[in-house]
Amino acid sequence: MSKLFGSDLHVVNVGIASFAEAITRAGAGVIQLEWAPPAAADAVAKLTKHPAVEAANQKAFDAYAAAQPVLEGIGVARDHIPGMTDRMLLHAGPPIDWPRMCGPMQGAIAGAILLEGWTDDLGAAHRLAASGAIRFAPCHDHAAVGPMAGIISPSMPVFILRNAAGTNRAYSNLNEGLGKVLRYGANSPEVLARLRWMRDTLAPTLAAGLKALGPVELKPIIAQALNMGDELHNRHGAASGQLLKKLAPALARSGAPLADVAAATEFIAGNDHFFLNLAMPACKAMLDAAHGVAGASMVTAMCRNGVEFGIRVSGTGSAWFTAPAPLVDGLYFPGYSKADAAGDLGDSAITETAGLGGFAMAAALAIVKFVGGTPEDALANTLAMRAITLGRNPAFTLPALNFGGTPAGIDVRKVVDTGILPVINTGIAHREAGVGQIGAGVTWAPMACFQQAVVALARGLPPVGGSTPKNVR
Amino acid sequence: MSKLFGSDLHVVNVGIASFAEAITRAGAGVIQLEWAPPAAADAVAKLTKHPAVEAANQKAFDAYAAAQPVLEGIGVARDHIPGMTDRMLLHAGPPIDWPRMCGPMQGAIAGAILLEGWTDDLGAAHRLAASGAIRFAPCHDHAAVGPMAGIISPSMPVFILRNAAGTNRAYSNLNEGLGKVLRYGANSPEVLARLRWMRDTLAPTLAAGLKALGPVELKPIIAQALNMGDELHNRHGAASGQLLKKLAPALARSGAPLADVAAATEFIAGNDHFFLNLAMPACKAMLDAAHGVAGASMVTAMCRNGVEFGIRVSGTGSAWFTAPAPLVDGLYFPGYSKADAAGDLGDSAITETAGLGGFAMAAALAIVKFVGGTPEDALANTLAMRAITLGRNPAFTLPALNFGGTPAGIDVRKVVDTGILPVINTGIAHREAGVGQIGAGVTWAPMACFQQAVVALARGLPPVGGSTPKNVR
Repeated sequence: MSKLFGSDLHVVNVGIASFAEAITRAGAGVIQLEWAPPAAADAVAKLTKHPAVEAANQKAFDAYAAAQPVLEGIGVARDHIPGMTDRMLLHAGPPIDWPRMCGPMQGAIAGAILLEGWTDDLGAAHRLAASGAIRFAPCHDHAAVGPMAGIISPSMPVFILRNAAGTNRAYSNLNEGLGKVLRYGANSPEVLARLRWMRDTLAPTLAAGLKALGPVELKPIIAQALNMGDELHNRHGAASGQLLKKLAPALARSGAPLADVAAATEFIAGNDHFFLNLAMPACKAMLDAAHGVAGASMVTAMCRNGVEFGIRVSGTGSAWFTAPAPLVDGLYFPGYSKADAAGDLGDSAITETAGLGGFAMAAALAIVKFVGGTPEDALANTLAMRAITLGRNPAFTLPALNFGGTPAGIDVRKVVDTGILPVINTGIAHREAGVGQIGAGVTWAPMACFQQAVVALARGLPPVGGSTPKNVR
Repeated sequence: MSKLFGSDLHVVNVGIASFAEAITRAGAGVIQLEWAPPAAADAVAKLTKHPAVEAANQKAFDAYAAAQPVLEGIGVARDHIPGMTDRMLLHAGPPIDWPRMCGPMQGAIAGAILLEGWTDDLGAAHRLAASGAIRFAPCHDHAAVGPMAGIISPSMPVFILRNAAGTNRAYSNLNEGLGKVLRYGANSPEVLARLRWMRDTLAPTLAAGLKALGPVELKPIIAQALNMGDELHNRHGAASGQLLKKLAPALARSGAPLADVAAATEFIAGNDHFFLNLAMPACKAMLDAAHGVAGASMVTAMCRNGVEFGIRVSGTGSAWFTAPAPLVDGLYFPGYSKADAAGDLGDSAITETAGLGGFAMAAALAIVKFVGGTPEDALANTLAMRAITLGRNPAFTLPALNFGGTPAGIDVRKVVDTGILPVINTGIAHREAGVGQIGAGVTWAPMACFQQAVVALARGLPPVGGSTPKNVR
């Protein structure tokens, strides 16, 4: 190796041009061979400047930008989530069956089975899960999202959001805080006790507070938080604080028992990630508004089940385009390394899909202390995302980029064409159930999802004589 | 004029070099004539690299950096503020007598007289104030600080802070919120009713909450807020939110009546400037720790009474060095202009003196929407302050400057030597009592204060043979 790098290099780069650019920047010569999988290259060529796609994307992006997610209240999952039935558990990411699930998801499912009282001990819970008697379905198929394992069981409390500029609703479970929590696969008695308290005390108390407060518009809180150092995926301290400013007085006036008010206030105040489970359904509500526009190449969901990464695209209906879930480069907590990590996990990449999280890192320079890198990297990540998005969200401004809007509306054509992958800030789960979070970092969505999506989209569209096909670089 | 600027310019710049640098940057030639008032130039020459000054500054800066301001509780001004007597009112800025006070300060004093019940109507309050029967003294002379008019009357509630790394304490009144408020000179019945509620209900409720909570370290809140878009002079939304996260649960558990808990929580949650009146005494506590070091040229207070701007320096004891208070360039609210403005007013420049506010603008890029300018200006202001300060506060990091500490410890020698003036973010009061805030902007401390201070400091120090005097540029 040292001999290789001691001599002049003659490099040929095949495919994604950014590798060649890095070599050029380093001062070496490189021959760029333009190549992409033939089907994807053809599909991009067909879809580029396609009038139907352009018009569809404009419609989809406008619906996303116009959406107004409003928190209406808290209810029980089985009473509110569309299509939720008894003996059904929702999970994060694209569809997956029990045997293939990662450790944290299996652990969380076993915990949810105990929480529901479907059986009494962990061994029996695993057998029940494997028996086929429980239906598993992606949260995303039920207008819902959940962080990490993302398990929502029928009796769990859920936030109920409405898009006030449309007709769609979105749902999420409530954030449990840090440490041993179900979403990282923990299912010990303390985890279940907290979930029962959340169901039996926290949820009714918050419901009373929200009733006293009235509907809460979430977009202004998100916009404000972006000016206060949150990127709304891994930093929610400002957003959680802004929510508490509304909720704490309302809780005190709600008529709920004082001890419950104190406990609920303390729980929210003690968990800077509390707003994550509101940012996520807010993003889901904005993106579902953009979903289902025939011909649109805009991504409306990115999510992971710990084994596979999946995306959905506005113009391709309910189809999932999947690829193996990447491992996350990042800062690992002491004693852990990448070898301990589960694959990328959770529906929380819905924040990036909506222009937040990694796409809004320029708002949250301090996050590099948590996910790694430098403030310059954070700015560069946001700037890079401008190349693969349809526009910028005028409601979500970034002071460090002179108040430019966050790049939003990922275009599968542009991802395949440029080779630039959507960036995601994420927590890292231990691959075994119950260990919990072992780090945080930055990862990128896999290219294969976007290649499949452009091919599927192109298949459904007639070729256009007036378009100007160009080769994929 | 057009003829003048149409021809080649031959410029001679006398004194402050930065004017010449601006001309050079614009591409024109300039001859720089080095000049400063002879006494100040001589003083800087004498003090530059003076071993006693260097050692004293190190000691002063270290005491500032080591200080740990802790909120201990809330009490009544007359019971806690040292030297506070009946029929005494504290005010912002350097000393000033009644006839020379600006409109907002006179209005606030009249309001405080009514609040104290020393007389019954406004006319009588003005006559009483003018009669000599009321003692007026700067907050700073009583270990206290107050924003804008900064009036503290004997019955008012005050925050009680202690420097846990030293022996000094600091005090401030409580923030009233925005709109018609005493600190801007308003004294209508609604203003007095709010002050009575703050005294009779809010203060005892918060006292109960603080008792339940225990002492609150303020430096971690400030440090966190700097990573969340506050600069702690005109942006306190994050710091106020962080405080609420601690206070709201404690209030709910305090045993105070539920209606009072709800009202107190609502009051704090509804006022994003609530933390200003804690940031200010926190800075006062840090800087008083650095005060009184013989020979130190570090500034320990900058403040304004609306007529004069005053500074104190660690090595020159209780002396004030004053100059006319500047008018503030900034963003005026609709219907107002600079012609309506009072001179720069308030003790809040204690935040800049401690490395926050204008010195920490790089933490708070979104503030330019409030005080004017661009995010680049905000970064440039912080960077410029590095040239006139003794060091950087390692506890107060700025993500946008790669987590460098805020520039802190203004050195009067460096201000006079470089011609760079301390930058201050501030609110702008209407010059008439009771109109309130009419804008916000950026202003600069007047050079004359610093020139007087170096002269006074030099007078008290023996010349040093080993030092290397140099001419003031």
